[in-house]
Amino acid sequence: MIVTARLTFSAAHRLNNPNRDAEWNRRTYDKCDNPAGHGHNYVITVSVRGKIDPETGMVIDLKVLKDIVRTRVIDRVDHRNLNEDVDFLRGVIPTAENLARSFWQELAPAIEQGSLHEVALQETEKNSVVYRGEDEA
Amino acid sequence: MIVTARLTFSAAHRLNNPNRDAEWNRRTYDKCDNPAGHGHNYVITVSVRGKIDPETGMVIDLKVLKDIVRTRVIDRVDHRNLNEDVDFLRGVIPTAENLARSFWQELAPAIEQGSLHEVALQETEKNSVVYRGEDEA
Amino acid sequence: MIVTARLTFSAAHRLNNPNRDAEWNRRTYDKCDNPAGHGHNYVITVSVRGKIDPETGMVIDLKVLKDIVRTRVIDRVDHRNLNEDVDFLRGVIPTAENLARSFWQELAPAIEQGSLHEVALQETEKNSVVYRGEDEA
Amino acid sequence: MIVTARLTFSAAHRLNNPNRDAEWNRRTYDKCDNPAGHGHNYVITVSVRGKIDPETGMVIDLKVLKDIVRTRVIDRVDHRNLNEDVDFLRGVIPTAENLARSFWQELAPAIEQGSLHEVALQETEKNSVVYRGEDEA
Amino acid sequence: MIVTARLTFSAAHRLNNPNRDAEWNRRTYDKCDNPAGHGHNYVITVSVRGKIDPETGMVIDLKVLKDIVRTRVIDRVDHRNLNEDVDFLRGVIPTAENLARSFWQELAPAIEQGSLHEVALQETEKNSVVYRGEDEA
Amino acid sequence: MIVTARLTFSAAHRLNNPNRDAEWNRRTYDKCDNPAGHGHNYVITVSVRGKIDPETGMVIDLKVLKDIVRTRVIDRVDHRNLNEDVDFLRGVIPTAENLARSFWQELAPAIEQGSLHEVALQETEKNSVVYRGEDEA
Repeated sequence: MIVTARLTFSAAHRLNNPNRDAEWNRRTYDKCDNPAGHGHNYVITVSVRGKIDPETGMVIDLKVLKDIVRTRVIDRVDHRNLNEDVDFLRGVIPTAENLARSFWQELAPAIEQGSLHEVALQETEKNSVVYRGEDEA
Repeated sequence: MIVTARLTFSAAHRLNNPNRDAEWNRRTYDKCDNPAGHGHNYVITVSVRGKIDPETGMVIDLKVLKDIVRTRVIDRVDHRNLNEDVDFLRGVIPTAENLARSFWQELAPAIEQGSLHEVALQETEKNSVVYRGEDEA
Repeated sequence: MIVTARLTFSAAHRLNNPNRDAEWNRRTYDKCDNPAGHGHNYVITVSVRGKIDPETGMVIDLKVLKDIVRTRVIDRVDHRNLNEDVDFLRGVIPTAENLARSFWQELAPAIEQGSLHEVALQETEKNSVVYRGEDEA
Repeated sequence: MIVTARLTFSAAHRLNNPNRDAEWNRRTYDKCDNPAGHGHNYVITVSVRGKIDPETGMVIDLKVLKDIVRTRVIDRVDHRNLNEDVDFLRGVIPTAENLARSFWQELAPAIEQGSLHEVALQETEKNSVVYRGEDEA
Repeated sequence: MIVTARLTFSAAHRLNNPNRDAEWNRRTYDKCDNPAGHGHNYVITVSVRGKIDPETGMVIDLKVLKDIVRTRVIDRVDHRNLNEDVDFLRGVIPTAENLARSFWQELAPAIEQGSLHEVALQETEKNSVVYRGEDEA
Repeated sequence: MIVTARLTFSAAHRLNNPNRDAEWNRRTYDKCDNPAGHGHNYVITVSVRGKIDPETGMVIDLKVLKDIVRTRVIDRVDHRNLNEDVDFLRGVIPTAENLARSFWQELAPAIEQGSLHEVALQETEKNSVVYRGEDEA
């Protein structure tokens, strides 16, 4: 059984690899490399897999799950600049892929009922990623 | 190949475990334990997995699948109180997790082309569950 | 200029006019008259019309508007039974139309920047109403 | 008859009135005043009102309308910082209200079939504004 | 008070004015003039304006309204070719504008509680029209 | 890590197996067998699975992925009749299942970073399919 919570946050970011030159960055990231940044309304969905507790009928209380996501992720990234303001994103190019993996790392240790199954991140109506901890073993 | 039908229903429910005291229920379910109940527009998506029949080009006729979901689930829960009005939910705490598993049990035997792959239930824009029959073997 | 805030709540209700007999109620409300009730995820959108304050660039701070809607409406109806639990709905048949008008009456006096323009209430994906205070003069 | 085109763009912004002190800005804009900015996926819907041309069956060709919106607005704000990168927003606090009015001013002169009826701007799922040129006479 | 019902249908169409030559049609309708047609999932929302009946709490029973829309419009256009299969669209270029006006003409006489306020037709996520009977007086 | 691009197209189609008689087709496809066709706004979501390139922070550039989907699929099916106008669908009954499999076959060889993970196709709000290349080994 998988339970999923959906939350949103709004943030600015710029895609740029400081170890490569301007020409490489422009070619790789195009308008996402705009020096003054741009931004998104991100949708994050966090899924926990586990057995139904017969006493509560729940895998994990979704209020508890949402509180974890809010404390560990939303409160630290919402209305922030992902390149400059977020401690756990220092040195991370804030692509959707890297964000999903970083969010997974923040969330996984905090889930105490069931286990983290998936972090999905929608950057726009057209672009999204799904991460299931594949390289975390 | 997986084919999915999306249907909706509206129902009232209250989360309460009658074997536990009021204090436990309030702490566990908070406002979901309101004695006079509350309600939701549920979205149920039912997925069937199978091979494409080369003659029809379909795994299962989605009209047939939707008729099964309507007869076995929607007609029995729509505009009902899930704690009081539904025979197959007697004694079940109507959390999204328990509902999804109960719906699975109603639906699985009725699928004759392909096999039931997943029952997903969205309770609100923010809360949803997915069940794939994990404990049914 | 019109600014709009969107909020949601989940509630149970039953459509029934106690001054009419069972046959009339069944004919009029059909399955919405289920004695044990049913429920919905309501979407309420509240619009305020006014001029842009040149100093803030806002008609009304949407955080302020949402706090008003939360205090005056959401906190009193969310996870409640609209027939039994809500003081300002005593004696009101909780159709979407009546709810929108009642919400308007709760909200209009509290808007201090601009004036209440519209209360829209979506009961399901298929059913919604819009109220602009037409009979309130 | 009103025809409406829906387009999207992603941008960073910061709400801050440089004529007021830090304390006023923090109190007024709260987390929207984050110095390094934040951002949104904006949804802009542009409506034109006019008569149906009997020869084409259209008020205005929606391809033409969308090209106007793209050239006059989207290409200048998408993947930009609204405080720093956009000529027609110099000196404008980029609230949704001010953006909608500025977009109206860019768009209105370019509509040659029918006339601009409404610019709606959705900043998040919860916040939106509608502008109909009220103070432009 | 305005009440609104949302329904959907799926249809094929081709935009082509038979009184004009191929070159004009290609220039005017571009790929919408594809000879073998294309199609859409249309969303039709029908709004009725009226007073709340104090006995029922409703302007018009939404079940009644939806039955009218189904009988007068949906059943005649759903899974049809709008150029060839629909009697009341003979000789009409099936643009969204013309469809909305034709649907209005089919619906307005059938509304007996309140009066038809608006027919909105969404052709795609990006294109929609609204008609309020402007030229019908 | 899975990255997903969402695109849309509008097309006409008719479900009909020319090797079976009219009675079989009517019984099997019902109103989907309308001789003059009907149509849909299809939503196609294409997912690629792979490792994050540490230099770019991306599995595959979503602009590149969308260009592939546009060139290989959208440009050939958008505003077309799927029974008559599309070379790679010759002889294919254009059910959602067959379309998803055909789109997979067009797309899989073109993905050079990561590998094609899933093609999902939504035909209406209620009907969708998911294909993961199951029978392609």
